[in-house]
Amino acid sequence: MKSAAAIMSGLSLSTSTPCSASRPHSCLRLFSLSLPIYRSINTPPIHLNPNFIVRNSSSSGSSITAKPSSEMRKNRSNGLEQDQKLTALRQLFRKPEINIDAYIIPSQDAHQSEFIAECYMRRAYISGFTGSAGTAVVTSNQAALWTDGRYFLQAEKQLSSSWILMRAGNWGVPNTTEWLNDVLVPGGRIGIDPFLFSSDAVNELKEAVAKNNHELVYLYDVNLVDEVGKEARPKPPNKPIRVHDLKYAGVEVSTKLSNLRAELTDHGSSAIVISMLDEIAWLLNLRGNDVPHSPVMYAYLIVEIDSAKLFVDISKVTHEVMDYLKKAGIELRSYETILSEIESLAARGAHLWLDTSSVNAAISSTYATACDKYLERLSSKSKGNNLYGAPTALYKSSPISLAKAIKNHAELEGMLNSHLRDAAALAEFWSWLEEEINKDACLTEVEVADKLLEFRASQAGFVDTSFDTISGSGANGAIIHYKAEPDSCSVVDKQKLFLLDSGAQYLDGTTDITRTVHFGEPSERQKECFTRVLQGHIALDQAVFPENTPGFVLDAFARASLWKVGLDYRHGTGHGVGAALNVHEGPQSISFRFGNMTPLHKGMIISNEPGYYEDHSFGIRIENLLFVKEVNTPNRFGGNTYIGFEKLTFVPIQTKLIDLTLLSAAEIDWLNDYHSQVWEKVSSLVDGSARDWLWNNTRPVAKP
Amino acid sequence: MKSAAAIMSGLSLSTSTPCSASRPHSCLRLFSLSLPIYRSINTPPIHLNPNFIVRNSSSSGSSITAKPSSEMRKNRSNGLEQDQKLTALRQLFRKPEINIDAYIIPSQDAHQSEFIAECYMRRAYISGFTGSAGTAVVTSNQAALWTDGRYFLQAEKQLSSSWILMRAGNWGVPNTTEWLNDVLVPGGRIGIDPFLFSSDAVNELKEAVAKNNHELVYLYDVNLVDEVGKEARPKPPNKPIRVHDLKYAGVEVSTKLSNLRAELTDHGSSAIVISMLDEIAWLLNLRGNDVPHSPVMYAYLIVEIDSAKLFVDISKVTHEVMDYLKKAGIELRSYETILSEIESLAARGAHLWLDTSSVNAAISSTYATACDKYLERLSSKSKGNNLYGAPTALYKSSPISLAKAIKNHAELEGMLNSHLRDAAALAEFWSWLEEEINKDACLTEVEVADKLLEFRASQAGFVDTSFDTISGSGANGAIIHYKAEPDSCSVVDKQKLFLLDSGAQYLDGTTDITRTVHFGEPSERQKECFTRVLQGHIALDQAVFPENTPGFVLDAFARASLWKVGLDYRHGTGHGVGAALNVHEGPQSISFRFGNMTPLHKGMIISNEPGYYEDHSFGIRIENLLFVKEVNTPNRFGGNTYIGFEKLTFVPIQTKLIDLTLLSAAEIDWLNDYHSQVWEKVSSLVDGSARDWLWNNTRPVAKP
Repeated sequence: MKSAAAIMSGLSLSTSTPCSASRPHSCLRLFSLSLPIYRSINTPPIHLNPNFIVRNSSSSGSSITAKPSSEMRKNRSNGLEQDQKLTALRQLFRKPEINIDAYIIPSQDAHQSEFIAECYMRRAYISGFTGSAGTAVVTSNQAALWTDGRYFLQAEKQLSSSWILMRAGNWGVPNTTEWLNDVLVPGGRIGIDPFLFSSDAVNELKEAVAKNNHELVYLYDVNLVDEVGKEARPKPPNKPIRVHDLKYAGVEVSTKLSNLRAELTDHGSSAIVISMLDEIAWLLNLRGNDVPHSPVMYAYLIVEIDSAKLFVDISKVTHEVMDYLKKAGIELRSYETILSEIESLAARGAHLWLDTSSVNAAISSTYATACDKYLERLSSKSKGNNLYGAPTALYKSSPISLAKAIKNHAELEGMLNSHLRDAAALAEFWSWLEEEINKDACLTEVEVADKLLEFRASQAGFVDTSFDTISGSGANGAIIHYKAEPDSCSVVDKQKLFLLDSGAQYLDGTTDITRTVHFGEPSERQKECFTRVLQGHIALDQAVFPENTPGFVLDAFARASLWKVGLDYRHGTGHGVGAALNVHEGPQSISFRFGNMTPLHKGMIISNEPGYYEDHSFGIRIENLLFVKEVNTPNRFGGNTYIGFEKLTFVPIQTKLIDLTLLSAAEIDWLNDYHSQVWEKVSSLVDGSARDWLWNNTRPVAKP
Repeated sequence: MKSAAAIMSGLSLSTSTPCSASRPHSCLRLFSLSLPIYRSINTPPIHLNPNFIVRNSSSSGSSITAKPSSEMRKNRSNGLEQDQKLTALRQLFRKPEINIDAYIIPSQDAHQSEFIAECYMRRAYISGFTGSAGTAVVTSNQAALWTDGRYFLQAEKQLSSSWILMRAGNWGVPNTTEWLNDVLVPGGRIGIDPFLFSSDAVNELKEAVAKNNHELVYLYDVNLVDEVGKEARPKPPNKPIRVHDLKYAGVEVSTKLSNLRAELTDHGSSAIVISMLDEIAWLLNLRGNDVPHSPVMYAYLIVEIDSAKLFVDISKVTHEVMDYLKKAGIELRSYETILSEIESLAARGAHLWLDTSSVNAAISSTYATACDKYLERLSSKSKGNNLYGAPTALYKSSPISLAKAIKNHAELEGMLNSHLRDAAALAEFWSWLEEEINKDACLTEVEVADKLLEFRASQAGFVDTSFDTISGSGANGAIIHYKAEPDSCSVVDKQKLFLLDSGAQYLDGTTDITRTVHFGEPSERQKECFTRVLQGHIALDQAVFPENTPGFVLDAFARASLWKVGLDYRHGTGHGVGAALNVHEGPQSISFRFGNMTPLHKGMIISNEPGYYEDHSFGIRIENLLFVKEVNTPNRFGGNTYIGFEKLTFVPIQTKLIDLTLLSAAEIDWLNDYHSQVWEKVSSLVDGSARDWLWNNTRPVAKP
């Protein structure tokens, strides 16, 4: 709640201001998107969660306090400063205990997080490029930065002449390892911080550089970029951790732990190391304040059959949390001691469950080395006769990912309740915006987003935004990865379509909603496109299908109406959403990519967000969150349960944008039914002009 | 044409006969199915084309002459004869030049054919079990036969007590190699005929038996089952080959060969060996008469950059075909000399393209051994300095499979024309059947299918059925793999739904159609199910989608209407169809299995056959063939071409079975438009009562 107040300071736009085409704004807001965009196959191995791109969160750093953009932008023009950093970094290369020919600096933190604390933004610090996705590689005489098409322009502006921009995905552009294999003399030593790469990513990397006989050197003890920045680098976040109320969590931590332990036992495993921050927060019913948009804290957790240890900066642990953890049988350890505990697990003959897609290479390698040592010692003693009790590793996806994705009753109730309050805030917001625009007020995309935040922040239990708002007017709406900048963004007016994708973190739930509206007269073209996007949205919303159907099977339902006239959109249709946790979570998704075979299960939450984007003209997206429910079908062929969706989001869809002649009778029924539910559920939460707006925007329509 | 006449002899049912519940019939017809059923994951490695199950064609053997069922059934009861065969087989095991502990007898011929000649039905011969799918394994003291759930009852009846029936897919039943690993003393020698296993299948087999240190012994020179049968075994088919007229083939063999050679060159390959019979027939514009239902001839083809050799029984090659081949630059070789040519290719340093999923292990192993020999010889001469010209293998899918699947204009025209004649035959048939049933004639499922054949055979260019007709009345329609037997099959009457899935080979095309009808009063339940199957059929028929979409993406369109009420069907929705070739061909499919990533292309032909099956009650399937066409969409998002389907099949869908209240306005329009096309295209090809029937069954319907 504190952080929300912090955001609000200096951002409040209680009244509209007169129009000027483009003007500076006192706060920097870096917009990114909430929809499930998938990385191009050709991008370099940046090792993100493939379900969605990493959001830029450099604006808010280790807390979510807004900073003047002028301060942030200082770095950009300062080529000299960047060069000094490179020089300092290269000096470290030559230290005898380091002795490397190149150093790879990825975007990641040690937990594969989507949003990361500013102190861990080493790639941005060393290169000056602040985009969300990118990898820097520095050799003794060259420095190169890889990013994808979203960021080519930004990187061109931000990189000094000491840097080569590698436009990943462009024809002929090598990836990081191809480049390293090319520029380094064979037999080179390539340094990495093993905490910043997943175990899987490092294995790929190792294999790729081995082609030219290079060695990957793990520098456990020091991150060279931190060493360059030293005292000037931001400090790690240290806001207090809070207990996530059982009335929202639904299941006691003791139950979650015993379920997890049963799973470990079933797989012959005696311990698991958990490094995904949302998994730790979910399992322990704790919430943190370390990164923007996600209520998580930096930590590792090791659960054994009869004990559990949380590795965290103790200064974040309040007395209340300390007591709570004690009751749950969870010991506290310093965040920095994780590797020595990993070694100790091996020494004690653990059978350790490791999810190599998320656990970092520092952990997995330390464990592997410790296991080898154990075996060596054993064989030197007893010639390898008695292997009973030898430590082993079980490489397997985290069992918590699926458990977390399937929401319990309390989690669903919290999500429903927070969505109703969010809907009330949105009704107030849209009512306000319509009025302002009708008064010919001039509002920029940034100002509009800030005002939305104000309405949300006044709702009970508001904590934070759940991602950087995408506020795209006219042609900006067509840039799927649009990020409005205060000094260059457009105004929202009666002439253009306006796409607004936003969400919030509440104590009881997480929201994510997109609406597209027109305050004047939409063109026939815009109406046809909007209607077809809506038809896709309705088709997916209404789908019924056998349980165990993977999400990608449903993706075509959301596209069929666009495909009929040769239209499509270049992003996925749905991503998972956490309950008062990350706005993007796995393992499920609904996408045209066929790799994710995770079946949809009752209790999962997923977004429904088809869209259409006409370059240089307009963008359309209609997004609700849904949860998967059992459908009481009159038949159950093959003994199967059939499942479908129930809506969480209750905000009107602008009927002005619908070409009603295109809708079937069933689609019109869907729309009228939805709007009647919106009125029924949300009207009691708003009053005055917002209530009038809600009434006006939930009236039934009829086929002309 | 001759073979068609052969079928007709003794089958003609020009008038209906009085009813008796169940009676013997003078011919044996083994029915199998035309729809894309997929093998259960748990079945043993029988190594079929995974797109569809193998059809039983033992009834007609090496030609399609029908045989009295009494003759065929003699084997079944004769346990003694089976035991004598086993004894003779085991005696061969002990010959010094053979010396094996077990012998595996699969269902396949040497070309992975769906329909095979009787002389190659070794598994049926040795075991007495005549089902289409199965593998026999004989050791010195045991004999076991694996088959899947479709055939458990049949196998129980047909196998003598010397055989163990292995119910594949049942819990705890080992697969062939698990069983061999269990029953043989480690280090055993397991014999196979390497011609009868694909190269891929043998590699799997080898790996599996190596676990228990067994060796796979390739018996190139003799098939032990043939040796047991000796003179009593049927002779290989020797009907003449014919030239497939250019007006149907569309592209000269010279063009096809130069396209293929360009492809070889592009891949650095100098030769290809083709073993799939339909690929040879397509590439050379030849048609054969060696197996039932498919107009192919047993052959291998080797195409090099400057020559081509056809390996075939020369007695089948007429003077006309001989001249034709000579002009095309294709040399003739005896079928049996394939392996010596493979060796010669290696000796000449060929870079041989091998599709290991279809080419048999005899060929791939012979080539690999010959390559090794070459290299040994070379290294002993020149110490390996000069490897230029060394033979190599390129393991890659056959380039002909995709080329064949994308039909040219002439092929599509032939398909369209043959479908219209087929539609005329079906109109005559349905008109006849309706009349007979209205006269209370008693007709069995077999008699009805025979009569259909009679109508088809009178159409110009008729050659053969394209698969064994599925004629299922009432509960039999619910058995997806139903095979009506003359002495036990049901009657077709006014009380039951009747499902009829059938197809024909014509000189210019191949057909495959399913219709479900009721001659009395269908129940509300039947109407709802039929209507939902129809809605799925319409949704797929109407789909528009970007080119390069794999077929499985569309599968859910065909199921969505059934899913809404908790219904589904357990088979795929669409299979490819050859042009005057195999009724089932790859590489495309439309299925709920997600393994087949082949994109749909303009010119491909695919079936659209959703269904619904209610056990012990009724079965519904509505099948048309479609071809993929470009759709002239008003937009082309992303520069993509959008594609959709055009119908090939024009036979009325029974409107009596439709619950019109369930259909949308657009679905009713589709139905009326389809029926108006049926009348327009087919009415001129029929007269009398068939024309009346067509008129009555193509009248528009309206929403009540």
